[in-house]
Amino acid sequence: MSILVVGSVFFDSIETPHGKVERTLGGAATYFSVAASFFAAVRMVATVGEDFPKAEVDFLSQRGIDLSGVQRRSGRTGAWAGRYHEDMNQRDTLDLQLNVFADFQPELPPSHRDAQYVFLANIDPKLQAMVLDQLAAPGLVGCDTMNHWISGARGELEALLGRVGLLVINDEEARLLSGEHNVVKAARRLLAMGPKRVLIKRGEYGVIQFSAKSVFAVPAFPLEEVFDPTGAGDTFAGGLMGELARSGDVSERGLRRAIVYGSVLASFVVEDFGMARLRTLTHEAIEQRYRQFVSLTDIDGA
Amino acid sequence: MSILVVGSVFFDSIETPHGKVERTLGGAATYFSVAASFFAAVRMVATVGEDFPKAEVDFLSQRGIDLSGVQRRSGRTGAWAGRYHEDMNQRDTLDLQLNVFADFQPELPPSHRDAQYVFLANIDPKLQAMVLDQLAAPGLVGCDTMNHWISGARGELEALLGRVGLLVINDEEARLLSGEHNVVKAARRLLAMGPKRVLIKRGEYGVIQFSAKSVFAVPAFPLEEVFDPTGAGDTFAGGLMGELARSGDVSERGLRRAIVYGSVLASFVVEDFGMARLRTLTHEAIEQRYRQFVSLTDIDGA
Repeated sequence: MSILVVGSVFFDSIETPHGKVERTLGGAATYFSVAASFFAAVRMVATVGEDFPKAEVDFLSQRGIDLSGVQRRSGRTGAWAGRYHEDMNQRDTLDLQLNVFADFQPELPPSHRDAQYVFLANIDPKLQAMVLDQLAAPGLVGCDTMNHWISGARGELEALLGRVGLLVINDEEARLLSGEHNVVKAARRLLAMGPKRVLIKRGEYGVIQFSAKSVFAVPAFPLEEVFDPTGAGDTFAGGLMGELARSGDVSERGLRRAIVYGSVLASFVVEDFGMARLRTLTHEAIEQRYRQFVSLTDIDGA
Repeated sequence: MSILVVGSVFFDSIETPHGKVERTLGGAATYFSVAASFFAAVRMVATVGEDFPKAEVDFLSQRGIDLSGVQRRSGRTGAWAGRYHEDMNQRDTLDLQLNVFADFQPELPPSHRDAQYVFLANIDPKLQAMVLDQLAAPGLVGCDTMNHWISGARGELEALLGRVGLLVINDEEARLLSGEHNVVKAARRLLAMGPKRVLIKRGEYGVIQFSAKSVFAVPAFPLEEVFDPTGAGDTFAGGLMGELARSGDVSERGLRRAIVYGSVLASFVVEDFGMARLRTLTHEAIEQRYRQFVSLTDIDGA
């Protein structure tokens, strides 16, 4: 089954303690799509400017990503510049140029309206809702958001959550959205807002998933070096939703396996700047690290 | 097999966002011993003052803890007072009276010299070494320490680590002792100092164990309320070493199971002030939570 994602495509200029890179391909929809493309066909809904290079169009197309829902408009592609601190959980935004993304209105080609697996990456909840409005009968809807919308568009966001099956946010966002500091209480509150499952990303400590009946926690893969954390959360979501679309198994067991695949993809993307590591990643490497995750977490393992 | 522990016995006055308690039984050796006593017979090596109440002697004895290595001396038992912040990862020490603990010199009764399972709770590394010097041929030696000794007695501590099988410290201590911020690099550096295994406690994020050949990570049990984190690390170590002494299985598999039992015990102790929860804890509750840990972490579970 294919998967539809709506979100941003940006060029990122990134500085970490390990070095810097200028105008590398980024944006939530891009990280998500490339990660998901290891598992399923992807339809991307986004907007880029006239400056978006053919080489990147070719890269995305060759990965099985359908770009017919990507609007190419006059003007420039969005651009972000940021610098990570020595403690890479902290970063400063140095520059943000929304460019064509500023007045993005997602419009789905008729061919996309049958989408079953849908991911609403972090954009204005009004636009996330617009996408759902254009779908005939979506099956599993995943959704991300950020502090900006939690504070500034809470009404729209809460209305949207009633239409979402899987909320994928980080711990800081979970606290802000729920008003609860404790992760268990936060998750219970968020589940009451609509989603059947809440996945809370905890950076280097991994992910914890809550449903009404179960809790599943998986650590992040222990890496000697996190080179660049940009896009890790979107890459996680791409691996997760991609594997769900591939397997069609949205049971607790299917979700758990998909969460581990998401964690595997995220563990790779941080090994190099931007999405460089995803460009050379193989299915073999993914399966090998999946087995390492099993060994890392298996209480009865040896 | 029985287990020998050396460390502090204190009275703690604790204030958390949930309330306060005055002069409750505490100290690393006490938390450790009570937790370990659910799995094996325990021999405690420590010192208390004339004020140490018979009721607590009876409590510890009834739990199968051999107090023949506890010196009762003229003066008062050590006393600590602390206040936790709203974020309970932070606490301030309000008062510390070492009292009889100030010139504690561990002396083992001859009956204790055959100890096989030994835990050196957080005290001066000189005293930790004194205990090892009195043992005939210890099998598995576990060891904790703290920032105070890492900064102030590094030479003694590093010498001690060559005699330790299992180092059990928290992430902040691991960073300070290794000089590495990254947890994987820190663990590799610590393994090179001698211990066969390094267990790093990460508070609400659980524990990660490193050996030369394997890594095992287990999350903390997700609790809606952490009432009082005092003693959680020592309780973890007690459950861990207790289960190892019970099973006699120090293979990777045995260690993993023991780490989960340690995590189970730690998840209980924080549910109430001091060690109140351990006083009412049952084997049935321990086994039930162990099964919950399996379900929490099992990738192929449902």
